[in-house]
Amino acid sequence: MVKELIDAAMKRTPCDLLFKGGRVPNLFTMEYEEIDVAVKNGVIVGMGSGYEATEIIECAGKALVPGFIEGHMHVESTNMVPRNLAAVLSPLGTTTVMPDPHEIANTCGMEGVRFMERESRDLPIDFYYGAPSCVPATSYETPREPLDAKDIKTLLDEGTCAHLGEMMNFPGVINCDENTLAKLEASKGKVITGHAPGVIGEELSAYIIAGPSSDHECFMAEGALEKLRRGMYVMIRQGFTARNLSTLAPLVKDNPYVCTRCMAVSDDLAPEFIAERGHLNGCMKELMAEGIRPLAALRMVTLTPAEYFGLGDRGAIAPGRIADIVMLDSVEECNVLKVWKRGKLVAENGSLVEPITPPVISKKLPGVGVMPKMPSPDDLKVKAPAGDAMMNVIGTVSEQVLTRTLTMEPTVSEGYVVADAARGIAKMAVVEKNQGTGRTAIGFIKGFGLVKGAIASSVAHDAHNFSCVGMDDVSMSTAFAALAKIGGGLVVALGDEVLAEVEYPVGGLMSVRPIDEILKESEKLKAAREELGCTNGSAFMQLAFMSLSVIPELKLTDQGYFDILNGGPKPLFVK
Amino acid sequence: MVKELIDAAMKRTPCDLLFKGGRVPNLFTMEYEEIDVAVKNGVIVGMGSGYEATEIIECAGKALVPGFIEGHMHVESTNMVPRNLAAVLSPLGTTTVMPDPHEIANTCGMEGVRFMERESRDLPIDFYYGAPSCVPATSYETPREPLDAKDIKTLLDEGTCAHLGEMMNFPGVINCDENTLAKLEASKGKVITGHAPGVIGEELSAYIIAGPSSDHECFMAEGALEKLRRGMYVMIRQGFTARNLSTLAPLVKDNPYVCTRCMAVSDDLAPEFIAERGHLNGCMKELMAEGIRPLAALRMVTLTPAEYFGLGDRGAIAPGRIADIVMLDSVEECNVLKVWKRGKLVAENGSLVEPITPPVISKKLPGVGVMPKMPSPDDLKVKAPAGDAMMNVIGTVSEQVLTRTLTMEPTVSEGYVVADAARGIAKMAVVEKNQGTGRTAIGFIKGFGLVKGAIASSVAHDAHNFSCVGMDDVSMSTAFAALAKIGGGLVVALGDEVLAEVEYPVGGLMSVRPIDEILKESEKLKAAREELGCTNGSAFMQLAFMSLSVIPELKLTDQGYFDILNGGPKPLFVK
Repeated sequence: MVKELIDAAMKRTPCDLLFKGGRVPNLFTMEYEEIDVAVKNGVIVGMGSGYEATEIIECAGKALVPGFIEGHMHVESTNMVPRNLAAVLSPLGTTTVMPDPHEIANTCGMEGVRFMERESRDLPIDFYYGAPSCVPATSYETPREPLDAKDIKTLLDEGTCAHLGEMMNFPGVINCDENTLAKLEASKGKVITGHAPGVIGEELSAYIIAGPSSDHECFMAEGALEKLRRGMYVMIRQGFTARNLSTLAPLVKDNPYVCTRCMAVSDDLAPEFIAERGHLNGCMKELMAEGIRPLAALRMVTLTPAEYFGLGDRGAIAPGRIADIVMLDSVEECNVLKVWKRGKLVAENGSLVEPITPPVISKKLPGVGVMPKMPSPDDLKVKAPAGDAMMNVIGTVSEQVLTRTLTMEPTVSEGYVVADAARGIAKMAVVEKNQGTGRTAIGFIKGFGLVKGAIASSVAHDAHNFSCVGMDDVSMSTAFAALAKIGGGLVVALGDEVLAEVEYPVGGLMSVRPIDEILKESEKLKAAREELGCTNGSAFMQLAFMSLSVIPELKLTDQGYFDILNGGPKPLFVK
Repeated sequence: MVKELIDAAMKRTPCDLLFKGGRVPNLFTMEYEEIDVAVKNGVIVGMGSGYEATEIIECAGKALVPGFIEGHMHVESTNMVPRNLAAVLSPLGTTTVMPDPHEIANTCGMEGVRFMERESRDLPIDFYYGAPSCVPATSYETPREPLDAKDIKTLLDEGTCAHLGEMMNFPGVINCDENTLAKLEASKGKVITGHAPGVIGEELSAYIIAGPSSDHECFMAEGALEKLRRGMYVMIRQGFTARNLSTLAPLVKDNPYVCTRCMAVSDDLAPEFIAERGHLNGCMKELMAEGIRPLAALRMVTLTPAEYFGLGDRGAIAPGRIADIVMLDSVEECNVLKVWKRGKLVAENGSLVEPITPPVISKKLPGVGVMPKMPSPDDLKVKAPAGDAMMNVIGTVSEQVLTRTLTMEPTVSEGYVVADAARGIAKMAVVEKNQGTGRTAIGFIKGFGLVKGAIASSVAHDAHNFSCVGMDDVSMSTAFAALAKIGGGLVVALGDEVLAEVEYPVGGLMSVRPIDEILKESEKLKAAREELGCTNGSAFMQLAFMSLSVIPELKLTDQGYFDILNGGPKPLFVK
């Protein structure tokens, strides 16, 4: 009731909370104020002296800042369900996130997106989901069901989603692909977020004209500057897999206006990355370490994302805005002491004040439960080609998600092409499980670092079918079978024995466990992986990108090899 | 069709226009670019080299800036109908205005507002009307019909209005007046513009909580800074009747961020003021003369108002935005050379390229046509009070719209209280015509500068009933009768002769004539006024505010004297 708020603002009735004596950065004028802040019914109602309140919070020597707002991330890549993620991010000062649920949209379709939104209610963090704009990423990947313009409109109209998620299909946009333009048209009037790596010049103009108004794929200062100049908001990404912060920081440092058009985002956050670095609080520290002024860094994770997403009810400590307030030792140090969500203390000294109810995940989550038949060792055999044919091999690049296309002589044993540890070649297989066909594609990969056994995963961007890299067919078959049994996850197998496994029952992407247990499981997995002689610390992460048909050069999906640069399939063998 | 725009952006098809070699201020990064600008179908589609176009515009040595956006004004106070006003403002570089039609809403109700919107279509300026939030201004004024929350919602829903017009009733807001809060509630999700003179501290917080997010009534730097800090946009007003620019300019000059939260607006523009000073082009010159950096001044009349009103399609020269482009000699000099609206050249060297079709104003405009019976000289007589009663007199303040309350001895002649030139006292009368009752209130006014005869006007804020100041009852009766005959306007009368008159047939507020004729009529009126010995150059302007029941101290409406400070009626005579 606005009347209750006005009465409290006018001091006719006492407030609920009074933050006394704190140092409050003002993000409109970019200066500090020493001012009391009064809160009623979860809303900031007054700033100044003379307020009475049920609870007084002494803030002398502390800074009070708005709750942090994450402009772009994927919940699924944290391997946590929303409520477990909220339990981790809330004590770090995050109060609002804008997730794009396109991973679960691939594995579970519309119901997956709705599930995420439902699971995100009544938490100390507000989740505003983007409608997944590119499911599937390309027609060479197989999602549970493709999402078309009508689906996008449904998600936006029914309130499941608040904006359009990253429009990755920039070739589709600039080439006027009908379905792609229809999705943008369906999102008219909503914020349309972009994804435009390396897109500049006339292509950038064409892309902007179609609707996207931000980009989180800037990896060069020059390209980011061009996007800013053309009116885009730039999301400076600092995540687990891609880190652009130090490259782009000079843009913000050298021009006071840029912090009003740039935000800092995470994109992909792995549990160990959060545990080590924090979330936007860590990001702020990194921005300041690059020489960005503290208030500019703060604006980039508060008011600027609020403005971009049209959320006039947050992003600043000001009358009428919700009381998402973070107490820091100082903006400069950025250590989160306490966090209030809508005026309720939710975290203190890095811990939640009240635990969040654990997730109740139904077995009926679409896409999980009914599994196709997994391949037997025989199904994974590759007959040697006649004559002296060469074979195409995915060439991994250390610590990178992109690959090279290699042409190598096959290693043949008993009439079959096999993995060859001596030459660094492993076999890779992908089994389609989203639609339950069990279609299996097989290829070879070099430089993965495996000596024996197999590792398999249900995290395989963007369609997230089951993928496996192994040195022998029995280990691979064991790994696939284990994956199917646990409904998705990560598996390490040797021969017919499963050495370690982690369950991701939620869409094959997320655990139901909290971060501590996930980190422990991760340790076990690491030990098992090392037992296989695999020294590649990023093995699972790298495997997750070996099917992604939008990052060059050669990838393997359930439909076979896909050659990104030529935009088409590629055979295993070449004459 | 977005496809046509994308094809032009990608250079697959030629553009319509190419602006070559201009200096283009970039308002996102606040720097200049030397860059070509390509336009297709009225939209900016490309920036850079290599574009082909049907028409090349050489811009070497010139600056190209976005069309100017007026954040707050009243069309009615220019005495021109929208299309005649557009003819004047378009050559000055204005391409978008946000008028609040509350004057015509008072005299003609909902139909008046709809009339304004209809009359504003297909012009070289886009008009986005605010729904009038305060009709009547107070219950002591008599409009055609009061506008309630339902009416506001109707105007917004049907698209007649785009935002809520200035919420002047701040006492109603902070005191939780039900109808006032209902109007704000009805505007939820739309921009709510404010009007909060001198409102600070807890009252400001309460006001902001209720919805208003901007203010154009800042007259002190300190108050404006407080509003900025609390998250409001500040509209720096520089109009005919109120000028705050030099007082507020230091705020913008001393802090680079403030130009992103401040705009420059006009509020009231008189024809002679436009003729002399220009519009936002003149405003920019004045901002720069105060030491504000040219690009900051430019942002205040382009990108900042566009951002505030959520118009992502304009406010900058950038791909995807409409081609509202102004060619200046330079931003520093700010002389408007040419103006394009949606890619069409509409003005050049101060003149329209094609004349705008003259207005066709129906006689059926509501509120105009059926007039009550006007008072006879006898009706205007004031019987002298018994005994030695004193009388309340409106005390004018030179060049101001506020007044003082004077208590004076009445001048009595033949049993009636009369005007007295020797003592500087004139009679004032207001006749209710909006509802056609003809109710007449009479008072006295000091310092108006009239020696003989009478002047009458149908411009009398905010209700705009007929008002007249005169030295004898016959002149006053003549003036009222003339006013009724012409359906509203301005009249100068002496005895039974009309010395000069100007017709405002449109709601009693606007002429159907173009600015040149209005200025000529204004000269005739001036000559007639001087014939009456009236040296007060602001006589008609001052008269227009003598009924306004929201500016202190004493005013006369059709309901009688109204004492603003005490918020109630006041008798003519005091014991």
